[in-house]
Amino acid sequence: MKRKIVVLMPGLEKDLECSIREMADRLGFEAVICQTEEDAQRAVAEAEILLSNVASLCAQAPKLRWMCSSNAGVEPYLRPGAFASQDVMLTNSSGAYGVTIAEHIIMVTLEMMRREAEYRGIVAGHGFRRDLAIRSLYGARVTMLGTGDIGRKTAARLRGFMPAGITGISRSGRPVREMDRVYPVSELDWILPETDLLIMSLPGTPETVHVLNEKRILSLPREAYLVNVGRGSAIDQRALVKCLREGHLAGAALDVFETEPIPPEDPIWDCPRLHITPHCAGNITLTYTRRFIVEMFLRDLENYAAGRPLLAQVDRERGY
Amino acid sequence: MKRKIVVLMPGLEKDLECSIREMADRLGFEAVICQTEEDAQRAVAEAEILLSNVASLCAQAPKLRWMCSSNAGVEPYLRPGAFASQDVMLTNSSGAYGVTIAEHIIMVTLEMMRREAEYRGIVAGHGFRRDLAIRSLYGARVTMLGTGDIGRKTAARLRGFMPAGITGISRSGRPVREMDRVYPVSELDWILPETDLLIMSLPGTPETVHVLNEKRILSLPREAYLVNVGRGSAIDQRALVKCLREGHLAGAALDVFETEPIPPEDPIWDCPRLHITPHCAGNITLTYTRRFIVEMFLRDLENYAAGRPLLAQVDRERGY
Repeated sequence: MKRKIVVLMPGLEKDLECSIREMADRLGFEAVICQTEEDAQRAVAEAEILLSNVASLCAQAPKLRWMCSSNAGVEPYLRPGAFASQDVMLTNSSGAYGVTIAEHIIMVTLEMMRREAEYRGIVAGHGFRRDLAIRSLYGARVTMLGTGDIGRKTAARLRGFMPAGITGISRSGRPVREMDRVYPVSELDWILPETDLLIMSLPGTPETVHVLNEKRILSLPREAYLVNVGRGSAIDQRALVKCLREGHLAGAALDVFETEPIPPEDPIWDCPRLHITPHCAGNITLTYTRRFIVEMFLRDLENYAAGRPLLAQVDRERGY
Repeated sequence: MKRKIVVLMPGLEKDLECSIREMADRLGFEAVICQTEEDAQRAVAEAEILLSNVASLCAQAPKLRWMCSSNAGVEPYLRPGAFASQDVMLTNSSGAYGVTIAEHIIMVTLEMMRREAEYRGIVAGHGFRRDLAIRSLYGARVTMLGTGDIGRKTAARLRGFMPAGITGISRSGRPVREMDRVYPVSELDWILPETDLLIMSLPGTPETVHVLNEKRILSLPREAYLVNVGRGSAIDQRALVKCLREGHLAGAALDVFETEPIPPEDPIWDCPRLHITPHCAGNITLTYTRRFIVEMFLRDLENYAAGRPLLAQVDRERGY
């Protein structure tokens, strides 16, 4: 019986499916391409390799040697009992989501600055009023909490809008080409008051939990904008809702939340100046993203077959 | 009695008001800053110079020598009877709107590609569905009908999104730095079928009326996107609504219309995949725009006082 690769990726293009089958065949594997989670649950018992974004499958895969997450975030795989087998190699798909998330960030930022929700309301009522005061990325002081793939691709796109400056914040403070300067997170507290737009793209690790707490939200200028696309745990969500209700911040756009889906009774649904999106910024609903994930996976499949280190290997200590 | 400059610019900042008064005083003028159209109507009878976007004031200004339009488009000033006096110099504020309109264009394009209206609907119903297939500026073939200030500033901002290419179309076909290539409008018909995103920023002249007619709309790929921020007259609006209803185009975003405000009974209100904004893309509701207009006006006020040619002079034959 051939060694099995199980793939669960909704919306996968036929040509990408073929690429996986061909490469698998060439390297002595059989690729089982599943269309639904139920299919994958049946197939996974025999899987040596799994490519999916459903972490719970790993607990049902006793023969698993390599888990490739089609997500960038890997928190679910770091929990005790996540795997049925031991010493499973874990890779992620960091790098696949920068393009789509950067576009999301710029879209929601402009929507807030240009009061798009209000204009949509005016037009829905067949009105033609056009006198709402708006703001611009031109001359804005941008702070990016997170200088990984998302932060860098966003900064590259923001540059053309001529912001006053792009300041990155990361654990290391290591410079990145796309930003004017990068500081270590220890410098955050003096940078927040000098921020017009705060963009958060942090991984979900114990260190990032509530990094934006009430005190820091209040240290942002009253007219600042906030965007979070990383993990909901990075913001004290209760404090943010309170600050927005009390008139602090010109707007916030959240794509990620402390609990997802947002519970029906959560007060966040009715928070003023808050733009909620359903964790769709970095979904795999973009062709480019699916292509990138498969290409990274196939590159590492060759490495795996040859016994070489995997390029997308996750550092389990750091958590990304 | 001092020579009068009448200014009507809603939302004008105090510091800009001061700059106008100071410069006027230095050059031997008196600046009358009006807050409402009614104020301006009273003041305009004595005006030698007028800075406003209300064209009808010119017919009530027998002493007018220089009209500075705070708009970019000047169609109303080219009509017979527009002025009560003869040989009035006409300048416009082209250049002031590129930043805000470029941001509008990129915002509405991403909203269409990322199906933001549908996501807003999902969230309004407290849903968390996130499986809508989306598209990207990455790799998109962009065609810009109009290579003036708006086209160039938009292209400069689009570049960071890594489109496949940016093709400009203009009357002259003269190259502009921000675009990969520029063709004269005679080449339009073979370029439209190779377009994923068509951005129109044409002035309102006899030559541009219905430049996008039904045949040309249908020559765009079925999955293309269309944005118009120039003049509503440049599109055969009835044909566009028909094409959208019949499933042609992935989306259209119009900020300008053949009749504004849109009449209550206009079928365009209920057209599918059409994003309507109330001619707010290039409004003077952005501080940057007001500052730019006033700075251009003051620069030409010095030229006017010294008897030099005005830099923002409109070519009445061309119409822009």
